[in-house]
Order: sequence, then structure tokens, then C-alpha cells
Amino acid sequence: MNARPPLRVAVTGASGQIGYALVFRIASGELLGAGQPLILHLVEIPAALPALRGVRMELEDCAFPELRDIVTTDDLGAGFRDVDLAFLVGAKPRGAGMERSDLLLQNTDIFKTQGRALNEHATSETRVLVVGNPANTNALVAQRHAPDLPARNFTAMTRLDHNRALAKVADKLQQPVSLLRRLCVWGNHSGTQYPDLSHALVDGRPLLESLDADWVEKEFIPAVAQRGAEIIKVRGASSAASAANAAIQHMRLWRENTPAGDWTSMAVPSDGSYGIPEGLVYSFPVTCSGGRYHIVPDLPISSYSRERMERTRRELEGEKSTALG
Amino acid sequence: MNARPPLRVAVTGASGQIGYALVFRIASGELLGAGQPLILHLVEIPAALPALRGVRMELEDCAFPELRDIVTTDDLGAGFRDVDLAFLVGAKPRGAGMERSDLLLQNTDIFKTQGRALNEHATSETRVLVVGNPANTNALVAQRHAPDLPARNFTAMTRLDHNRALAKVADKLQQPVSLLRRLCVWGNHSGTQYPDLSHALVDGRPLLESLDADWVEKEFIPAVAQRGAEIIKVRGASSAASAANAAIQHMRLWRENTPAGDWTSMAVPSDGSYGIPEGLVYSFPVTCSGGRYHIVPDLPISSYSRERMERTRRELEGEKSTALG
Repeated sequence: MNARPPLRVAVTGASGQIGYALVFRIASGELLGAGQPLILHLVEIPAALPALRGVRMELEDCAFPELRDIVTTDDLGAGFRDVDLAFLVGAKPRGAGMERSDLLLQNTDIFKTQGRALNEHATSETRVLVVGNPANTNALVAQRHAPDLPARNFTAMTRLDHNRALAKVADKLQQPVSLLRRLCVWGNHSGTQYPDLSHALVDGRPLLESLDADWVEKEFIPAVAQRGAEIIKVRGASSAASAANAAIQHMRLWRENTPAGDWTSMAVPSDGSYGIPEGLVYSFPVTCSGGRYHIVPDLPISSYSRERMERTRRELEGEKSTALG
Repeated sequence: MNARPPLRVAVTGASGQIGYALVFRIASGELLGAGQPLILHLVEIPAALPALRGVRMELEDCAFPELRDIVTTDDLGAGFRDVDLAFLVGAKPRGAGMERSDLLLQNTDIFKTQGRALNEHATSETRVLVVGNPANTNALVAQRHAPDLPARNFTAMTRLDHNRALAKVADKLQQPVSLLRRLCVWGNHSGTQYPDLSHALVDGRPLLESLDADWVEKEFIPAVAQRGAEIIKVRGASSAASAANAAIQHMRLWRENTPAGDWTSMAVPSDGSYGIPEGLVYSFPVTCSGGRYHIVPDLPISSYSRERMERTRRELEGEKSTALG
């Protein structure tokens, strides 16, 4: 018998498209590795509980050896009780004709409640990843309502943008993604994000030696920022499997280590690095080791990069004042 | 750089629900393991090519390090060219008011064409798993039209039924599935399948010591056989993620080894074992080693089991005579 105690992993919006793409990969061991038992806490709004029952039945029908139990609930107390990892996927989507500020405020209510419930019920070291949009500000709202938990454990996902940047460059250079290192995404998971190639390497050499600055500005940056909209146009639905994949990667890298010489992108509460004020959840290049992330320090920032980094900072400050103000 | 040549993995029906749940897990390395490069061949009918473009874009957006290329096509020549593994997921679903024999005949056409294309284009040792229903007979049809490929490499999926049986017993005994061994499913992936506990062990002891024969006959067997229909009722859609999971498991076990002392269930061309005539694709308990499956020999068969095994055999013979005429 395996003596390791099970870890508890919560997923909100668990019966949605991202949730459905996510929970089976978590249960199969892709998140925590073989030999680590887990208990899934699947959280949904009341209207989605019937669909959630179907997800639960199919999880049972996988007979995953490490999946010890499944909690399905619309109650945040039961949903977050003693959880070690929380994927906050569910959020209010933007309806037709809805103002962005209305969307922000409705999500503020949701993430306020979830922050409070995490504060009351989760483990003291629970790690939180917000996937539901507007992800950075939702993470900030949840963190502000969980005063007893470490602020640094509230993060939002920009690894999907990071992967999209990797794929776009690999395609341009006709090189495998496995040869690329040290790309990063700064700022907000939104149209103002800044996917940055200044520090990136291909097969150990500076990437920008092989790429035209015009292509980077006019094609690469807009393509990465608009990729989500392009997927919606082609699929008739927003990214699901690729978002779930990035969520697993984010959490796995955080618990384990980033590969030597490489980074990932994570939106985390700023510690003041690069002049980004504390009190914003902002995407930085980070390394992970010993179960912690570390913002990559002292990168030289060009005036072009600085301008992009400030633009996405200003957007986040606007979101913050709408949400908390 | 990794020197291993990439393996080519084909998936038909790749933009459908099972396909969408399957291809990301294959691309992430769950099928072939870390360090094995692969090329995905995603095959669809012409009407589904736009949706397939979305799947391809999301696969790109995962930046999977081992995914070297993606072929998307409605042409079976390009779809099966040099493939090492083929997941035949796409099939004609049963429409309202359609007779079972009509369904069989329409699928016969599909799998005849696919068998011929595999024969012409795939590698000489390609392994085929049919997931699309009626899976056993579809596999038989494909095999009959691929005379140059080894007949034993055409298989159909009953691992989902096997997993459902594991889950049902684990729930009944309130024991983890990881303590269960040597369950098996005989016959057709249909309502006549026979999930058999006669040889099963829980924590090393005969399972039937702990279970009532009445429960096995009246609850267990019907519940496993009807689980697919129950999922459809609850989800409003057929099993997708659990089917994809079983498909990966089937292929992985076939390429690797079954755990010591345990079996899996696979529908394979009968070699005459247990009196099942050659010329049927029938589910047996098998072990896998050295990249091959081996039907578990010489199990004692009770008269009750014999009757169940014959009933599902008769159904398969009926399907065969409709399909092959």
C-alpha cells in the first residue's frame, strides 16, 4: 500500500469545457505524478450539478488507480475543505452587449466569495491558479479576501499565452519548440499582454538574431494576443483542451522545477520587480524550485519593452480600481 | 537532440468528442512516454475539416515538446501513410429510427475502405484499435480488407467495459480499484458482453468470496453492460473522456506490459481459444509482453460463464453475417 497521504485538488467550473478537458488529465496522474494519491473536489453552480454527475460517472469509469475519492458539490465549504491545490476555472462569461466593467463586477462577486471560502476552508499553504477571466484581476480579488493565506499563492494563468508564443516562433523558424528557451509574457492575460522575445534563445543563441523586428511587432505580438479570438472563430467555442493543458503545466512547474536554463510565465502578485507596483497580479518570467516560484531578476528592459509593460500595467490598474474601488 | 525516430499515430474522427478528449493526451506523451517523438495524423470526414482546424490550432498552442508534426486530412492515403498506431474512432452513429442492420452495413462500408487504406499505406506492423461502434465487427471488417497486415493487429476496445466493471466492484466492496486483479470482459462490446468476476482477486483473495452471486447476476452484469446508456442519459452525450482514456490504456498496455499477475480485456481475432471460432473479433482476458498480447489460457469456465460467453458469440456471428454477407 502507498503510504503517501492523498492531496486534495479542487476544480471550479468542473463540468464546463475546460473543466472536462482538465479533470481527467489530473486524475490520470499528469499533475501530481504516478504514486501520488489524490481526491478531486469538483465544484459547480447549482444549474450545472446534473452535468457534473456525468463527469463524475466517467471519472469512475476510468478506474484511475490514484483517484481515491471524488467530491461533487455546489457548496464552497465542501468544495475547498482542506484542498492543497485549487484551479479556479469557472467564471461569468461575457454576454452579448455586456460592458467590460459589468463583467468585471460580476466576477468580482464570484471571486470575493471564493477567496473567503478558500481562506476559511483550504489548507494554509493551498496553491491557487485562476483560469477564469479576467484572470489576473479575479486572482487579485480572491487574494484580497483570503487574508490568512500567503498572498504569493494566488496566481493567474499566462502559460497558455506563453505556449502560443512558443508555437508561433517555432513555426516561423521551422524549429522544434523544444529548442526554444526564455520566452516570457508580461502583464495581463488580455489583448494588452506583452509576449517578449528579447531574452529568448533558440538552440542557445539569441532568438532576435534570426527574427525581424518588424515581424515581431506587427505579426508576432498581435497574433499571440489575438489567438484566443481566432480559436473562437474557428472552433465556435473558446480554447478548452489547450487551456487545460496550460493549467496543468502551470501547477506542475510550480510544484516541481522549471528546466535548467528555462523559465515559465506566471501572473503573480507583484513584489515591486521591474517597477510594477505591489497590489497587482502581473505576469512575469519566473523560475520554480523547491515548490516556490521566483521572479527572474535584473533582466535588461529596452524602452520598447518598457512601454509595452507599462501599457498592460495601466490596464490592470484600471481593472483593479473597477473591481476593488 | 533526441535520436529516436518519431512514431506516427492516426486518429479518425479526430474532431469528435472522443477524438478531442484523446489527441491532447496522446500528444502530451501519455501514450508513448516522455522522450518518444510523434507525428499525429488526424483524419476526418470533409464536413468536419473546419472543426479539425480548431483542434490542430489548439494542439499547436500546447507546444508539446514531442509533437513533431500534425497531418490533418480527409484523405485516407495521407491519413494512414506509414502510421504505426491507428485509433479508428470515427463511425456512423445510430440515427433515429435506424435499424441496427442498416447501421452495421453503413459502418461496413466505412471500415472496408479504412482496412484497404491501412493495407496500402500503413507500416507492416501497424497496430489498430477500433473504438467506433459496432467496434468488434468494424475491426473484423477492416481486418478482412487488409490481407497484407497481420490479422492479430486488428483489435477492438473493451477496456472501457473492463474499467466500468472495476469501478462497480470497487464501489460495492468499498475498496480501491488498485487492489483488484483479473477481472475480464468476454465477447462483444455491446449489451451481450460478459463481465466476468469468476477469476478476479481482491487484495489477492478470490473476489467471489466477498460477493453475492445474485448481486453479480442481477446488478453487476446489467449495470456494466448498460453503463454507456446511463452516461448518455445523464450527460446528454455519449462517453467521451472515459472512452479516450480506455483507448490510451489499451494501446499502452499492448505496447508495454500488463502488470505482473494482472490482465486486461481486449477484443482480438479469436485463435479458437475457449471454443470461440476463428473469424470473430471477440474480447478475451489477455496479458501483454514484448509488444504482443497473449490470450490467457486454460481458465476453468463454469456452465454459467459458458452460457454467457456463447450468447455474446452468437450475437457476433449474426453481426458478421450481416456485415460480410
